[in-house]
Amino acid sequence: MAAKLTHPNIADGWFRETGSMWPGQSMGIEVNQILHVEKSKFQDVLVFESKTYGNVLVLDGAIQVTERDEFSYQEMITHPALFSHPNPERVLVIGGGDGGVLREVIKHPQVKEAVLCDIDEAVIRLSKKYLPAMAASYADPKVTVHIGDGFEFLQNKRGYFDAIITDSSDPVGPAASLFQARYYELMRDALRDGGVVSTQGECQWLHLPLIAEVLAFARGLFPVAEYAYTTIPTYPSGQIGFILCSKNPETDFKTPLRRVSPEQELKLFRYYNADIHRAAFVLPNFTRAALAAPQK
Amino acid sequence: MAAKLTHPNIADGWFRETGSMWPGQSMGIEVNQILHVEKSKFQDVLVFESKTYGNVLVLDGAIQVTERDEFSYQEMITHPALFSHPNPERVLVIGGGDGGVLREVIKHPQVKEAVLCDIDEAVIRLSKKYLPAMAASYADPKVTVHIGDGFEFLQNKRGYFDAIITDSSDPVGPAASLFQARYYELMRDALRDGGVVSTQGECQWLHLPLIAEVLAFARGLFPVAEYAYTTIPTYPSGQIGFILCSKNPETDFKTPLRRVSPEQELKLFRYYNADIHRAAFVLPNFTRAALAAPQK
Repeated sequence: MAAKLTHPNIADGWFRETGSMWPGQSMGIEVNQILHVEKSKFQDVLVFESKTYGNVLVLDGAIQVTERDEFSYQEMITHPALFSHPNPERVLVIGGGDGGVLREVIKHPQVKEAVLCDIDEAVIRLSKKYLPAMAASYADPKVTVHIGDGFEFLQNKRGYFDAIITDSSDPVGPAASLFQARYYELMRDALRDGGVVSTQGECQWLHLPLIAEVLAFARGLFPVAEYAYTTIPTYPSGQIGFILCSKNPETDFKTPLRRVSPEQELKLFRYYNADIHRAAFVLPNFTRAALAAPQK
Repeated sequence: MAAKLTHPNIADGWFRETGSMWPGQSMGIEVNQILHVEKSKFQDVLVFESKTYGNVLVLDGAIQVTERDEFSYQEMITHPALFSHPNPERVLVIGGGDGGVLREVIKHPQVKEAVLCDIDEAVIRLSKKYLPAMAASYADPKVTVHIGDGFEFLQNKRGYFDAIITDSSDPVGPAASLFQARYYELMRDALRDGGVVSTQGECQWLHLPLIAEVLAFARGLFPVAEYAYTTIPTYPSGQIGFILCSKNPETDFKTPLRRVSPEQELKLFRYYNADIHRAAFVLPNFTRAALAAPQK
């Protein structure tokens, strides 16, 4: 008989999220059962079945996805970028081992090649087992997978991709380098002309200095760089942002360049629509003031 | 020497929010010290000093306001409604005993009379002591306060107010009647021609059936009824919505009727601006589908 699984973040039937990036607050989710606990080569991996959020994937104590609300994140890190590109044929996902971003990428019929590069095979393996609605995208013939460091993967690519989506965890642990200027430079150089970038960009209620810092170097490396956000209950403070960059100075991320019919939109997406695309870039005053582009 | 204060929601230095309206999830806030514990005539009242969210007011186990993020709620329950009215001279606040909504109401120079009616004097008394940035509004000469039931207060008013803002707790406990059709009817009758209503309208991630129900009877009682929302870290799932109604069939809540200059906007508001006013009504697909008005 297998020993009962335990995890330091779970006590008295509740998972409590911990993280140095949201001091003094903690999201709790009620647990039905722990499904998997593992120290991978890179991080602490936990999968549990929750009472009201479906299966939940946790890396180093931080919630990555829950089956109930993941669609908001996956759709909003993907579609504002891809609908701002006229013809995204080659798309790279860095991180995103759960497969959810890939699922959104291949909804665009323009996409001929979707490449995923995640550093940790454990995330892919466990998502295939416990998060099937996300990992189903791995079966698509347009998809190829590389297990390895995104930073290194980009160093060998020049002018190849139309879009790069960085679905990373927070800048503590294995994803730290993905919030640095050198990484944005590598993404830029791996893009074809007119290519676009969308990266996990942290939360305006928690991380304005970090967001301002990333936007500042992104604006130095790309002619266009913007911050957008979506609501999602199980990320700290209930929302998460994205940094969007384009090599094309004409790109206006705030206005979709392409769109599908409203009927198709409702069929394809649970969160995204062309109006919420525009609204995602509308910032409250406290963020607007902190992220204003310097006067030229 | 005073005995050390305790509260059933606080253990091991953390406050854990409980509530039947968000099963399986719980927001945790780290506590510096408990400031006040009281069973008022109507509810369990707790005030504590948190580590990273300032002072926090809790009623019946549910966070009402924290000093760090309250501005989002107070501004967004108030200004989309008031900026949609041409000349809001008489404004009534039901609930809102912390004084935060009043603070926002009196930012409109059109307002000649701001009346607050809260059922629980304990909330007003404790807010004056522990939430001075909100309760400062009580000192304004335009403000008058009634301690009593909002339902009863409205029954004696006919065609008087230009705007009624219902800043209530959840529909379990003393605020239950404020989510019923009869209450909306009383608000309508207490308004002058062209009057507007804004009420705490719960969270689209948690309460879509309740929101749909309220919207349905509101649409039967008012020619215009809409749902909007704002982000706020310490409400369940990180956001809260509002039901806005107007007696004027021409009211377009989604487009501000009045606005101040962008410079004034930045000085007056930390969250609200005319663009976020518009964006607050833009719903993701899952909400759009659930709240669509029936075809006429």
